[in-house]
Amino acid sequence: MIFSKLLIFFSLFSIAFSHETFNSHLLPRPLIIEYPETFREFNNEVQLHCTSWRFATETNNLNPWKNVPSECAEYVKDYMMGRGYSADLERVSNESAFYAKSVELGGDGKDAWVFDIDETLLSNLPYYQEHGYGLEIFDPLQFDKWVEKGEAFAIKPSLTLYEEVLGLGLKVIFLTGRSEKHRSVTEENLINAGFLKWDKLILRGSDDKEKHATVYKSEKRSDMVKEGYRIVGNSGDQWSDLLGSAMSARSFKLPNPMYYIP
Amino acid sequence: MIFSKLLIFFSLFSIAFSHETFNSHLLPRPLIIEYPETFREFNNEVQLHCTSWRFATETNNLNPWKNVPSECAEYVKDYMMGRGYSADLERVSNESAFYAKSVELGGDGKDAWVFDIDETLLSNLPYYQEHGYGLEIFDPLQFDKWVEKGEAFAIKPSLTLYEEVLGLGLKVIFLTGRSEKHRSVTEENLINAGFLKWDKLILRGSDDKEKHATVYKSEKRSDMVKEGYRIVGNSGDQWSDLLGSAMSARSFKLPNPMYYIP
Repeated sequence: MIFSKLLIFFSLFSIAFSHETFNSHLLPRPLIIEYPETFREFNNEVQLHCTSWRFATETNNLNPWKNVPSECAEYVKDYMMGRGYSADLERVSNESAFYAKSVELGGDGKDAWVFDIDETLLSNLPYYQEHGYGLEIFDPLQFDKWVEKGEAFAIKPSLTLYEEVLGLGLKVIFLTGRSEKHRSVTEENLINAGFLKWDKLILRGSDDKEKHATVYKSEKRSDMVKEGYRIVGNSGDQWSDLLGSAMSARSFKLPNPMYYIP
Repeated sequence: MIFSKLLIFFSLFSIAFSHETFNSHLLPRPLIIEYPETFREFNNEVQLHCTSWRFATETNNLNPWKNVPSECAEYVKDYMMGRGYSADLERVSNESAFYAKSVELGGDGKDAWVFDIDETLLSNLPYYQEHGYGLEIFDPLQFDKWVEKGEAFAIKPSLTLYEEVLGLGLKVIFLTGRSEKHRSVTEENLINAGFLKWDKLILRGSDDKEKHATVYKSEKRSDMVKEGYRIVGNSGDQWSDLLGSAMSARSFKLPNPMYYIP
């Protein structure tokens, strides 16, 4: 249907311009150039389709998926670079903080908030800008090189939440799919981005390598519970950060239409 | 900010028309009337804000909420009555069916798919059209009167999924927040809408009245598991249909920006 619409659009376009030489100086011409209706219709179709795709990914209905569909590449880029992504990040941070303030703490220092790292605390947007905002299939070797630079920047609304959560007296635990071999560069990157302290930083050890993120993160959360922590909040951009066992009392899904981790 | 934008919009509007009498016949005038930029900007602001609000509700970040915020009333109406809602329903039905076909059945007739009823199989849109599409605070007495009419219509993409699931040899179980007193009108409504058979229809009994939906539905799913069912899929428009204990292997969140059930 998209192609037929494009065809109609280009036909209309050529008809419009073929009339250009015909007595054009005699007619009052519009001062405003308007796109033909068909072009707007085509744009609306793409918008509808890609918004629906985004909701399917964000609600975990689409599972698994490997890369952004090509027809939504521009849509995802616009969302990430425009105000959509930052508006959503702000909102989830505000909602999380609102909830955090309502939690009655146990007073024994065992209430904890679990944060994922990539696309939750730290943004890898400079990397994804170079890789089609998720249009390209994920390349772990290339991504490792980026991680090793330690240049990921803070997601500001998450930094605000992190500070509020610490201020309330909660413990913070960072639980990431990054490998143990990236511990020091990750610590350095976190500190440079403003995340100055944490109770635990858990990375994938050699035993965790083959595990799905949901399994690995569930196991680590279960360990926390065994150690006496009460997980009152959990923030992540992937459902595999949030679902599974030893789930948090409340989970907060940050937006991420660029990639999916099972 | 919205009011200041509106003010600018109306100022520009009056300026535009106050110039209308000034030598207007001497100038070539545009054939196309364009809205002032400010009006489009204002519309974009509302669109951005309400899309972000919808994302927050659909991902369960906003929890609980009582009614649609007034500035998003038109947005929600447009979404429900336009193509957005039906596009999202189609997509979740397709994704669910795609997954259902991939499930390896046990062969003992114990694989089951759990469906919620309201806004999952049956649509109460005619009721919500009369009540501001979720703008009004939910009125259980008024809603009961609507339920008792038995006129809710089938959500077509869900009917398609239901038939596919049955065709695959899965058992279907309907688990609803409706009261046991509405059993016969619900059965009748389901049959009239095309949902002709089911393995179980579970409604809230007198013991369940005060329970949150998450607790009530978790208990009922646990009972199913105890009876030997394997819950391979679960469809619902509320996160309280899907989260809790005895969770399904895969859950599918249908869109619903009109109301929230804890």
